[in-house]
Amino acid sequence: MDGSKEKIILNVGGIRHETYCSTLRTFPGTKLCSLTEPNASTLYDYNPTTKEFFFDRSAQLFGYVLSYYRTKHLHCPVDTCRSVLEEELAFWEISDAQLAPCCWLKLTNKDSQPEEFNVWDENEHADDQCLIVQVERRDFSWRARWQPKIWSIFEKPFSSLSAKCLAIISLLFIIGIVIIFCEETKAQYEYSAANLTIFGHSNVIHSIHEPYYHQAPYLLHLELFCVLWFTFEFSMRFFFCPDKKKFLRNPLNVADFLSLFPVYIELFTAEQIQKMPSLALWLGFVRVVYLLKLLKIFKLIETPLILRVLSYTLKSIIREICFLLMILAFETLFFGSLFFYSELLGIHSSYRADLHFTDINICFWWALITLTTVGYGDIIPLTIFGQVMAAFAAIFGMLTIIIPIPIFLVKFKGYYATAITKQKLKMSKKQ
Amino acid sequence: MDGSKEKIILNVGGIRHETYCSTLRTFPGTKLCSLTEPNASTLYDYNPTTKEFFFDRSAQLFGYVLSYYRTKHLHCPVDTCRSVLEEELAFWEISDAQLAPCCWLKLTNKDSQPEEFNVWDENEHADDQCLIVQVERRDFSWRARWQPKIWSIFEKPFSSLSAKCLAIISLLFIIGIVIIFCEETKAQYEYSAANLTIFGHSNVIHSIHEPYYHQAPYLLHLELFCVLWFTFEFSMRFFFCPDKKKFLRNPLNVADFLSLFPVYIELFTAEQIQKMPSLALWLGFVRVVYLLKLLKIFKLIETPLILRVLSYTLKSIIREICFLLMILAFETLFFGSLFFYSELLGIHSSYRADLHFTDINICFWWALITLTTVGYGDIIPLTIFGQVMAAFAAIFGMLTIIIPIPIFLVKFKGYYATAITKQKLKMSKKQ
Amino acid sequence: MDGSKEKIILNVGGIRHETYCSTLRTFPGTKLCSLTEPNASTLYDYNPTTKEFFFDRSAQLFGYVLSYYRTKHLHCPVDTCRSVLEEELAFWEISDAQLAPCCWLKLTNKDSQPEEFNVWDENEHADDQCLIVQVERRDFSWRARWQPKIWSIFEKPFSSLSAKCLAIISLLFIIGIVIIFCEETKAQYEYSAANLTIFGHSNVIHSIHEPYYHQAPYLLHLELFCVLWFTFEFSMRFFFCPDKKKFLRNPLNVADFLSLFPVYIELFTAEQIQKMPSLALWLGFVRVVYLLKLLKIFKLIETPLILRVLSYTLKSIIREICFLLMILAFETLFFGSLFFYSELLGIHSSYRADLHFTDINICFWWALITLTTVGYGDIIPLTIFGQVMAAFAAIFGMLTIIIPIPIFLVKFKGYYATAITKQKLKMSKKQ
Amino acid sequence: MDGSKEKIILNVGGIRHETYCSTLRTFPGTKLCSLTEPNASTLYDYNPTTKEFFFDRSAQLFGYVLSYYRTKHLHCPVDTCRSVLEEELAFWEISDAQLAPCCWLKLTNKDSQPEEFNVWDENEHADDQCLIVQVERRDFSWRARWQPKIWSIFEKPFSSLSAKCLAIISLLFIIGIVIIFCEETKAQYEYSAANLTIFGHSNVIHSIHEPYYHQAPYLLHLELFCVLWFTFEFSMRFFFCPDKKKFLRNPLNVADFLSLFPVYIELFTAEQIQKMPSLALWLGFVRVVYLLKLLKIFKLIETPLILRVLSYTLKSIIREICFLLMILAFETLFFGSLFFYSELLGIHSSYRADLHFTDINICFWWALITLTTVGYGDIIPLTIFGQVMAAFAAIFGMLTIIIPIPIFLVKFKGYYATAITKQKLKMSKKQ
Ligand SMILES: [K+]
Ligand SMILES: [K+]
Repeated sequence: MDGSKEKIILNVGGIRHETYCSTLRTFPGTKLCSLTEPNASTLYDYNPTTKEFFFDRSAQLFGYVLSYYRTKHLHCPVDTCRSVLEEELAFWEISDAQLAPCCWLKLTNKDSQPEEFNVWDENEHADDQCLIVQVERRDFSWRARWQPKIWSIFEKPFSSLSAKCLAIISLLFIIGIVIIFCEETKAQYEYSAANLTIFGHSNVIHSIHEPYYHQAPYLLHLELFCVLWFTFEFSMRFFFCPDKKKFLRNPLNVADFLSLFPVYIELFTAEQIQKMPSLALWLGFVRVVYLLKLLKIFKLIETPLILRVLSYTLKSIIREICFLLMILAFETLFFGSLFFYSELLGIHSSYRADLHFTDINICFWWALITLTTVGYGDIIPLTIFGQVMAAFAAIFGMLTIIIPIPIFLVKFKGYYATAITKQKLKMSKKQ
Repeated sequence: MDGSKEKIILNVGGIRHETYCSTLRTFPGTKLCSLTEPNASTLYDYNPTTKEFFFDRSAQLFGYVLSYYRTKHLHCPVDTCRSVLEEELAFWEISDAQLAPCCWLKLTNKDSQPEEFNVWDENEHADDQCLIVQVERRDFSWRARWQPKIWSIFEKPFSSLSAKCLAIISLLFIIGIVIIFCEETKAQYEYSAANLTIFGHSNVIHSIHEPYYHQAPYLLHLELFCVLWFTFEFSMRFFFCPDKKKFLRNPLNVADFLSLFPVYIELFTAEQIQKMPSLALWLGFVRVVYLLKLLKIFKLIETPLILRVLSYTLKSIIREICFLLMILAFETLFFGSLFFYSELLGIHSSYRADLHFTDINICFWWALITLTTVGYGDIIPLTIFGQVMAAFAAIFGMLTIIIPIPIFLVKFKGYYATAITKQKLKMSKKQ
Repeated sequence: MDGSKEKIILNVGGIRHETYCSTLRTFPGTKLCSLTEPNASTLYDYNPTTKEFFFDRSAQLFGYVLSYYRTKHLHCPVDTCRSVLEEELAFWEISDAQLAPCCWLKLTNKDSQPEEFNVWDENEHADDQCLIVQVERRDFSWRARWQPKIWSIFEKPFSSLSAKCLAIISLLFIIGIVIIFCEETKAQYEYSAANLTIFGHSNVIHSIHEPYYHQAPYLLHLELFCVLWFTFEFSMRFFFCPDKKKFLRNPLNVADFLSLFPVYIELFTAEQIQKMPSLALWLGFVRVVYLLKLLKIFKLIETPLILRVLSYTLKSIIREICFLLMILAFETLFFGSLFFYSELLGIHSSYRADLHFTDINICFWWALITLTTVGYGDIIPLTIFGQVMAAFAAIFGMLTIIIPIPIFLVKFKGYYATAITKQKLKMSKKQ
Repeated sequence: MDGSKEKIILNVGGIRHETYCSTLRTFPGTKLCSLTEPNASTLYDYNPTTKEFFFDRSAQLFGYVLSYYRTKHLHCPVDTCRSVLEEELAFWEISDAQLAPCCWLKLTNKDSQPEEFNVWDENEHADDQCLIVQVERRDFSWRARWQPKIWSIFEKPFSSLSAKCLAIISLLFIIGIVIIFCEETKAQYEYSAANLTIFGHSNVIHSIHEPYYHQAPYLLHLELFCVLWFTFEFSMRFFFCPDKKKFLRNPLNVADFLSLFPVYIELFTAEQIQKMPSLALWLGFVRVVYLLKLLKIFKLIETPLILRVLSYTLKSIIREICFLLMILAFETLFFGSLFFYSELLGIHSSYRADLHFTDINICFWWALITLTTVGYGDIIPLTIFGQVMAAFAAIFGMLTIIIPIPIFLVKFKGYYATAITKQKLKMSKKQ
């Protein structure tokens, strides 16, 4: 028997693997290749009786390592975890860059989840960790002792009974201010309507005096009462907040802050408003921030898992949504312009149609309403040219609605699977 | 050879695994560690000839257990069932909390289905089980003997020929009463129209006498005939129902019960209706419950599997749907308010536009119709400010339609896969 | 060593498995249990030297079989094909009903595809097989020899050059008749418009004579020319069709047949049409079948795989689509009725609104247009009650659009994966 | 022991497999069958001591090969890569066409990804490769040295600071020309409006002189300034482009080229435009190509991966989209015709309705607007017949929107998974 056909026995974890020395010499510089050298029996755990080299490693993966020497392609089983594979390859002194692309694919697809696993985790516990840090540098002062408790009462409606009561009181105030807001619109509407009658249709004068804006005082006083509560609540939350920067970065808190001012301004500038009444409309406009307070209701509901994932997904596809909005904006400009010229050219060649739009901005408005398939029907193409453009706009709009669905779906499914596993892991650890 | 390099042979189910004693001492307190103790040969099945410890366990999973001692990471093959793994780890006295996160993920993802497996099952057979329980406490009375048969005739249209006939008769009555219902609307319409002519446009009087509500007697008699049948049917079903509580919790049965009254009330209060005719409209309104009877048609169709899964999915995402409806409500309030002020401000700065809405409620109505992309076109922004708001509302509406799709899809797919397997299992057991 | 601890060695395909006899006695009546009986060594291939029972079977699956005896739970590896498992279990005399539910799930999920695999195949080749059958019972007559060739020329546009030419000629005739059809509508429109002027608005008489329907003769002659071609084509296809029944069951062929008559009837009954002109409108209405011929264009395009799967999926979810249309019909009736009464009640309580609908049918029409989110805006709720109903209708419509998507998607994905594999298999067999 | 029961031991990579000679004779002509021939011991590596044939191959897959001889079905483990399997089967002289369909499915499903893997790659680097090729045939001329640098400055905004500046300047010019374009529409609108007043409503003459088109000169000069910049930019990019053909095949470059002309033509033909003013409208229409320049903004944004995949997916489903547009076109023709005759027949039988459409083209327009669920409400069915048709059109439209979603989704998911893996591979190679 010639040297190239010389056999070598490798006992890896009790399983005997047998191969030719020539096979092991395929990749010089690796641990297995060095076994074929004369001094191998002294370097490694060699049993002269059974003529075996013994290695205390996993027998299963060694089969793949040996196949690599035989076929020159490194594959791995589908159920191998990346870390296990890396450890084994490192032991046998093989680079994991040698892995075949098909197996690389299998490994990366699986690994995408554990990565998100941790991101998800940090996100969730950020709030608690922030509290813990606070606790560690405790100075036994009055503020340090009470701060976490008061913060919990105001921010975590399910933490205690008093927190629950406070949340319900706060909610009633929010509903109250929304009703007051709706009532206040009546005076603003009447002022605008009277204004319009005088200036817009000058020949029909309904009221002899110039219209002036007058809000019922009881509404303003009720509003003031609510806002005083919100001022108290906001001060407490800001004062006892563990992380001021994070607090101010939350858009809902900014809205809370802004919503404190309109009623004060209106009360202090009542005189000026009589003279410059459009200010009242602007103050009304700013009051829309009251409605943002309604979003706090979602805090009172223990949000189901699926919706928490949804909001996380929304954050992660914010760039894609922006991109699609830009495409929608481009389509609006493009189809609006085409519509404008199509209608003008159509009108020029036929005497059937009227001009039903006043400038190109109205065409852009028409294009957006058609692309979103709302289709109010206030602006409608009257010529064949315009109808063809409108048909294209409607079809493109339809496609633009369909396109974001798969993106959203793919991202959502990934996060959802991770979140479900996470939750189960948590539950099994509690047991 | 020093002690740390002392080898140990483990014959697990016939396969020889070999390792160093030092490796087994990695995790003290486990069964494998105790093998390295001096008295191990007496405690365990030790063969002095072959110097092997014999364990009658699965050889495949033991490879992973041994790797745990070598690398300190516990992994498992992707195709292992959770119960198998737990049993093996318990035998080797290793906690399954040691499992690496990547393998934990693999196990939980797979296990999500068998859990739902059973839920699904209970749901399906609840109806039959309820009957069986009934049968067990049989008292050989007349009612006990006939109850299941009559119940089947009225509730399970495919159980017998008489049940089928009864279902068809019942269906004809339902179709009949729906047609009668539509015919009755004519008298109600005429009464309302006449009413409107007198009060609404007082200068044009079409009829000298005050309009009065008069339903054709033959319609009421036909309706009475149908309702007598439904009264009989409902009584029988209620009397022979095995579980009265469950029967009354079904909204369809409540609708059945309510649908018995309108015609009786109308007949007994014919005099009063002449004097207080809006009562007739309310009685007509209540008759809409007749239409709910149409849902019974779905009982006559052997529902395909996919739709049964669909209804189950719908029940399971009821919380998510509520959440999304709340978001829709919030968007309606928000965009409605913005639209209100945008239009008022736009009108104030330009003299071009009319006021085409009367209060903020109309703006909320506009917002909802725009968000759902229905877009009737009755209320339309006339100023640039309002059009920008409308554009945002249309885009947000589009996104709100797209968002629930992935949630629904993910849940549906899970249940569908389980239901398909379930059905196949049932079929293979029948064979 | 006591009898219960007696060991037995099983050499399955060269791999030695070792266990206790007591373990094998767990399931009496199976092949492995019978090995523990005294006469086993004569019944099976027993090697007295090595004290092994030899079985020439797969060693891998035997590990799972042995685990079944040890743990009383039968599992299987995820990568096992059902047929392999069944064969092995049959050999070892174990029923496959013993398989654990988790593994059952794995097996069935995988097997769903190969089943559809064959359905798909039959569907595809049905056409060719039908031809082959025809060929086998050949009678060497003139018809038998020419039939397949002529059939190919008329039905398979890609089979030969002459078939391609014929397809293009046929297509030109189809486009021609569609243009003629559109031209003919003008005379019908003018007749209807004149008719309406006289009867509808009797005080304004534009034409002294009674309007009469008059189609330009050249159009009828051109149409006749096209229809003569279609008559020839249809006769040929019907005469040389290998399977007359299947031919007539195809709706497109029925449309072809019906499209032959309108022009003949119009020409032969020209006199009667002058007297009874609504007949002309009905003949025009029937001519819409000409448009169905346009669907033949899809035959000229080599349909991409994905669309063939789509049409197959559509066929398989026809029941689900019907179900959903029934739900849509129910919603239409329900919301239409609610809308009717809401508006009447709203009008009754306020004097602001007009009656803008004439009967309940118009309300059903409104409901459907709102549910499909088309929203023409011809019927609009004018009272708060009606607007609330409309809001619910719009939201339910939105949900009804979203619901069918997952059903469709799940079915489509299954068929698509199968079709892709099928195509690859075909290609690899051609090589 | 008879010859058929003669056993043979195969040592494959150290693992002993044992079987009967008769089993190996199942498939004559294969390597394993030849082992049973008398001269096998000389042909193969036979160890007379242990009576084993030694093969230096993977032991794992050999189990499946041996099972093939035992059961006559060739299966493979789910985690086998196709190339590994093919190599092993080739060694044992077995055709891979023998693979069972279930395993074939597993292999092909997995392999679909690596194929796309490479397509994706070529697509991405095409641009760079083209540059490299250019560099290789360098001739040390002035052009050869500067060409890649200038090309980078104009085409790759992130390659250098000067490129970034140039991109921003170019973007400002584009925004400038779009604003100029919008301003220019005003003169065109006024001309058209004046034109319409004279010819359309001849009895009301607002202006004594014939309306003439007059563009403000400062707008034309500003536009000329922008276009001069674009002329310079386009010349540079065309001159230094490495591949002229590819450059001209890009539709955006063609649009760039076309956008250079309108302003020159308008300036040089100012006299003619006064006489033939519809030319001005046409020149305005052509200016819409300015808007296409806005698409260059997307080049400035580093496109997120998901959107690159999206555009690639869109390209790959272009045929399916065309097919669906054809179906939409067919539905438009079909429902438009049905609507036309339904309304005419409805009008004929009742005297309630007006004719609100003028020809069948308007019906086609109506059909498309209903099918896309835009629903302007300009054309509305007034008869029961027409409303039934409209209901069907609305439902079919809804289904036509839902149908493309799964196609798009399935394709998108495939490409997305591949792209994610690709990116990870790239990153891990950079490390
Ligand atoms: K719409
Ligand atoms: K609309």
